[in-house]
Amino acid sequence: MIPQHARHGALADAGRLRDVQQRDRRAPLLHDRPRAPLSASISPARTENATNIGSAAKSVLAALPTSPMTNGSAAIAILELILSSGVSELASSVAHRSASRVAIIGLGSMGMGIANALHRADLDVVGFDVSAEARARFVEQGGRGAASAADAAEGADIVVSVVVSGAQTEAMLFGAGGLADVMKAGAVFVSSATMDPAVARGLAARLEARSVHYLDAPISGGAARAAAGALTVMASGSPEAFMRARPALDAMAAKVHELGDAAGLGASFKMINQLLAGIHIAAASEAIALAAKLGLDLDKVYEVITASAGNSWMFENRIPHVLSGDYAPHSAVEIFVKDLGIVQDMARGTRYPAPLGAAALQMYLAASGLGMGREDDASLARVYALLSGAVLPTKES
Amino acid sequence: MIPQHARHGALADAGRLRDVQQRDRRAPLLHDRPRAPLSASISPARTENATNIGSAAKSVLAALPTSPMTNGSAAIAILELILSSGVSELASSVAHRSASRVAIIGLGSMGMGIANALHRADLDVVGFDVSAEARARFVEQGGRGAASAADAAEGADIVVSVVVSGAQTEAMLFGAGGLADVMKAGAVFVSSATMDPAVARGLAARLEARSVHYLDAPISGGAARAAAGALTVMASGSPEAFMRARPALDAMAAKVHELGDAAGLGASFKMINQLLAGIHIAAASEAIALAAKLGLDLDKVYEVITASAGNSWMFENRIPHVLSGDYAPHSAVEIFVKDLGIVQDMARGTRYPAPLGAAALQMYLAASGLGMGREDDASLARVYALLSGAVLPTKES
Repeated sequence: MIPQHARHGALADAGRLRDVQQRDRRAPLLHDRPRAPLSASISPARTENATNIGSAAKSVLAALPTSPMTNGSAAIAILELILSSGVSELASSVAHRSASRVAIIGLGSMGMGIANALHRADLDVVGFDVSAEARARFVEQGGRGAASAADAAEGADIVVSVVVSGAQTEAMLFGAGGLADVMKAGAVFVSSATMDPAVARGLAARLEARSVHYLDAPISGGAARAAAGALTVMASGSPEAFMRARPALDAMAAKVHELGDAAGLGASFKMINQLLAGIHIAAASEAIALAAKLGLDLDKVYEVITASAGNSWMFENRIPHVLSGDYAPHSAVEIFVKDLGIVQDMARGTRYPAPLGAAALQMYLAASGLGMGREDDASLARVYALLSGAVLPTKES
Repeated sequence: MIPQHARHGALADAGRLRDVQQRDRRAPLLHDRPRAPLSASISPARTENATNIGSAAKSVLAALPTSPMTNGSAAIAILELILSSGVSELASSVAHRSASRVAIIGLGSMGMGIANALHRADLDVVGFDVSAEARARFVEQGGRGAASAADAAEGADIVVSVVVSGAQTEAMLFGAGGLADVMKAGAVFVSSATMDPAVARGLAARLEARSVHYLDAPISGGAARAAAGALTVMASGSPEAFMRARPALDAMAAKVHELGDAAGLGASFKMINQLLAGIHIAAASEAIALAAKLGLDLDKVYEVITASAGNSWMFENRIPHVLSGDYAPHSAVEIFVKDLGIVQDMARGTRYPAPLGAAALQMYLAASGLGMGREDDASLARVYALLSGAVLPTKES
């Protein structure tokens, strides 16, 4: 058993994270809001993937990571529930959950944010990145670094992969010194890279043959929400994979879409989202630079369009970068070079013509070819301006 | 002066329309909601285009069409305000407003809805359409029909044009039997057709040379909102044109974007909106049919995407048509064949490459070529399905 104070800390942090996840993203954290009783947080929806223990145990278990606990009496209430449930497996599940050792592979802006969110949830986190600089930054911020991905993953209950592609994921798992050889039976590999669903299915099958669970769990939301533990996860996998991954999912995500019990579904949903998001950024860029070419008041264009049928989440989110002439990367051009590339490969493979996605991809390629690959993806507006002589706002103006 | 009961009716209807405009679109009409005092509805923003009378008069005048009035005492309050303002022009302006005679040219689904909204506002409405069938339907619904566009427009204070193109607008104004020859000096022509901004500027100049005002006022919102008097108008024109058109604008629109004092600006903003809207419908179609091809649960796709960064106003609005397999036209494919065509013409003219708009236009052309031109624009999803073998929901399933 783990000491009471450790569980208390983990639960308190889980409660706090739930607050982070539910708050208005611009509002300050609400540490002191009124808290619901434990029983109120036992919802049928949260229990549907915990199938291997009795229903009372499931309810209590499902309630744990979302329980709003701030004092010892709440922790005691949990223990009473555990005892009264009379399900012996439950106690070990709780212990397992609270003691979860998590490895994060990939410490870029997303991975670093996730690592911090997991750490705040009192999970035992160890991180690795192929870049020595990223590793050093992680350690500097108080993280525990490992000398290799295998060192990080060995003995971990959960490995969260925050690399960028299916190829990187495969190399990490099955290349020389790959994790598949060192991960313990029953652990879960949480894969966040955007990839072809067929690749996700293949990786899952190979890992499951070694008794390691695979959760197909692409993420969205950007670096700021990663740091806040407020990502959106589009996840699919076996109930066991979900259950094992739950402590990490709860700490890193505001919303987990549970999309089915097979790997590949999460990847497919992410592809659909990226196809739309990539087209919408290109469309927003095409429209705002055309407005500039026509000499319109661009602030007024933003006001009118965001109140009209031409609006999109991406128009609303990215055009302010153009209006302020600030292309510091929130999300880089190369992300959509990659993701729309994957969509085109997948669509071609399945004999699906996707001409808008194809046209959008050409614009990301042009931006990258012009040297803007690592700048904000709203840079596509600058490509249109360059091609047409339109004049966009600059940072100084 | 017009009789008191007529003014009272107009004002009451104006108050009701404001309710329609502000309500949740799915909620029932709220005839009996608490009403704010008149003074509360005198806002500086509503007065900025009424420049030719004193400021007290402007405030009262601007408040009129939005005043929440349901009884005689409120009408008396208006008269008291008029008298206390001591501005003689005001009384005649009020009389002018309430007595406005309005001609509607074009009685399709949009024009018919606008005519009904104007009629409910107690404006004196006469309608014309080149189609005898549309004229008959209008008369059947209690409208007053005219034998020709010129007959309708002769003597009108406001002519609202609800035809579909710049070419139709030009023919109506300056062709044989055109309105330009019969419209009275000081009247205003409110042009709602989506057209090239240069065409709008040309029409305005030619009308203004005959002392007729021109308001460049493209509309958006669809037939249901037209019927509710809840359109969005993207308008530009002289302060005089705005002032003259105000009774019609207030009756037909929930929101009037005032975009500047020259014709062409309204048209330009509408083009930007249509470019985005047209691309987004095509993108939504490309994405949902790809999801079908991948065998995903399409209801779940809708749920996930509308909560994600890939969302757009059009995705949210049009994909339900695909999910229910119902392609009865809310807005027909041909609208975007036309509008994206105008954008491409305009962009080409100004040497602006718009590849996403171009790709989207091809998909509308394909839908039209396949015989779906008069069906709902969500039919683009059927084009993608046809091209790829994806299976979409049917009305029966």
